Amino acid sequence: MKINNIDYRTIWPDPANPKIIRIIDQRHLPHRLVIEELKNVEDFAKAISEMHVRGAGLIGATAGFGMYSAILCATRDNVDEVLRTAAKKLIATRPTAANLAWAVNRQLAAVSGDGDLADKSAVLFETAIRIADEDADFCRRIGEHGLEIIREISTRKKGEPVNILTHCNAGWLAFVDYGSATAPIYAAHRAGIKVHVWVDETRPWLQGAKLTAWELKEEGVPHTLIADNTGGHLMQHKQVDLVIVGTDRTTYTGDVANKIGTYLKALAARDNNIPFYVALPSSTFDWRIRDGIGEIPIEERPGDEIKFVTGRNASGRIETVAIAPPATKTANYAFDVTPARLITGLITERGVCQAAEPEILGLYPEKRGTPGKQGG
Amino acid sequence: MKINNIDYRTIWPDPANPKIIRIIDQRHLPHRLVIEELKNVEDFAKAISEMHVRGAGLIGATAGFGMYSAILCATRDNVDEVLRTAAKKLIATRPTAANLAWAVNRQLAAVSGDGDLADKSAVLFETAIRIADEDADFCRRIGEHGLEIIREISTRKKGEPVNILTHCNAGWLAFVDYGSATAPIYAAHRAGIKVHVWVDETRPWLQGAKLTAWELKEEGVPHTLIADNTGGHLMQHKQVDLVIVGTDRTTYTGDVANKIGTYLKALAARDNNIPFYVALPSSTFDWRIRDGIGEIPIEERPGDEIKFVTGRNASGRIETVAIAPPATKTANYAFDVTPARLITGLITERGVCQAAEPEILGLYPEKRGTPGKQGG
Repeated sequence: MKINNIDYRTIWPDPANPKIIRIIDQRHLPHRLVIEELKNVEDFAKAISEMHVRGAGLIGATAGFGMYSAILCATRDNVDEVLRTAAKKLIATRPTAANLAWAVNRQLAAVSGDGDLADKSAVLFETAIRIADEDADFCRRIGEHGLEIIREISTRKKGEPVNILTHCNAGWLAFVDYGSATAPIYAAHRAGIKVHVWVDETRPWLQGAKLTAWELKEEGVPHTLIADNTGGHLMQHKQVDLVIVGTDRTTYTGDVANKIGTYLKALAARDNNIPFYVALPSSTFDWRIRDGIGEIPIEERPGDEIKFVTGRNASGRIETVAIAPPATKTANYAFDVTPARLITGLITERGVCQAAEPEILGLYPEKRGTPGKQGG
Repeated sequence: MKINNIDYRTIWPDPANPKIIRIIDQRHLPHRLVIEELKNVEDFAKAISEMHVRGAGLIGATAGFGMYSAILCATRDNVDEVLRTAAKKLIATRPTAANLAWAVNRQLAAVSGDGDLADKSAVLFETAIRIADEDADFCRRIGEHGLEIIREISTRKKGEPVNILTHCNAGWLAFVDYGSATAPIYAAHRAGIKVHVWVDETRPWLQGAKLTAWELKEEGVPHTLIADNTGGHLMQHKQVDLVIVGTDRTTYTGDVANKIGTYLKALAARDNNIPFYVALPSSTFDWRIRDGIGEIPIEERPGDEIKFVTGRNASGRIETVAIAPPATKTANYAFDVTPARLITGLITERGVCQAAEPEILGLYPEKRGTPGKQGG
């Protein structure tokens, strides 16, 4: 996708020295574009846990490169131990994100056989690249499938703009490229279909205000920033035609863990008969979990993310301000679970399906009877 | 209520010179306690429109004193014109607030007969005091009625803390004293019932983080600040026993216009079988309106309230920071309407009733056949 009309991905190896991995440090957006170099597994773990990078696909891709970075410090004797430790460290950074364990386990499987250190290192690098490329490709295909949903609404509205509400940033900044929820929007925009996006600011971290609004601006997609509280009112007044969000972990029964507040928008969409879609590459499925609300672990983050807000002051300096009395206790759950019953459909790289076990396994028949899956 | 253990109201005449009305300028809370003097109707209009004061009851009380302030500049010849102009100016400040027109019209009615300028001025002062005293008294009684709802839950929970979620500030800062949604909470706390309040921060203006958290701290009521997105997750996990919110305008059919986002919490409460109550003095009823979503005007406020956040920086200075790209378009609807079907009950100064026309008119029989009321 574009930044100042130059094509970027969110993560890439330094062309001059592929042992160094570069990311956009998203904490500084929209105020500054900061590129950070990650050189060892500690850098990767910190980048994920402190949200220099975030978002389902990008967390997975970063963990993939993190495993490659780990092996660069290993010897022939300790390689298994180094990779096991790195895997544990990376998986622990964000407990809700399904892509994290998925990418790390894919890397572990790729080097589970024999082979010397250099071979394994090469395999980890290639697999990290493949994970990133696949993520971008899957998101591109999500765009193609989701485009048809938008096109249908546009036709029904006789070309009037299709108003799409999204929550958090399931944009290209949350993946390697294209995004999940944004991919159909970008595809529609490029196909000449008029779209307008209601951007939830997404407290506490403000991914909507800081990232989605910035992404859409760079791509020239019309959008309006709103407080998270606003979506219900807009839906009551027929100003929303469609909701598309992302997901950080999806059960094989169609329950979706996404950014805190997603569930409230799903309820409002249902109450107003507005289609509510979740866009996801299959890497966010958790094939072992049946009951999203009961079983998906929900990350709790530092309370200071609620009590303090960071932004640019009048003189251009980045400043952090307190918005509550100093001693106030906070609770900062990062995700909530939207039950499948509230979801109109899932937009995957293989097509659109109902958020229900038979339809999901219909698209992914190779997952039937996955070990650990209950009741399947 | 208490600030640093000293009793305050939110508005009062200067004891030495009752022509000067004092308010707490709430824009500076929780960082500083600023008392402002209002001396003419322009001061009053500005204090309301720029939210030095806000909240259903306090807006009404302020408008009441504003009408008194207006007459102080009138002559015998222009008094009617001065009051008409002042009434128009005050009513225009906040389009959704029902208490505004209610208080202004009460003042106009009080001086509609004969009488010289001094008489009318005295009547306007006395009526302003009466409006303020009544507001405090009605809120106190809302506390008594609502206390029983909390007591019942406490008994069922065998004395474990009752977890109450509230949105925005329907606290004593929104009225003259006690608050509406908070009155039952304060009454329960004083009766020795264990309560814990989930405080929605309430973007964009952050009334929860800045005002409700501060109020509850000053009164010693246990509470936890959360992002507005969080309530649904807490309800799914049985961490909310009861929701109580306020209202800025209530139809005689039980629809409620309250701070934007209230509707989303009502949907989540319904989805999780959690009682959802609205606390209100009868001054917020609009006896002419049947259909809340179709007929209550929803105020749109400046977009900068979304794009900028004000707080205290590390060196103690109050600073405003931008959280979105500079050119981002915003939409800032201040209220939404929660339909009566989602409301468990209304807590009024006369008792608790269902949010439905027969029950509301049962409590307020004198309003049967109110002129302009449709279908009654």
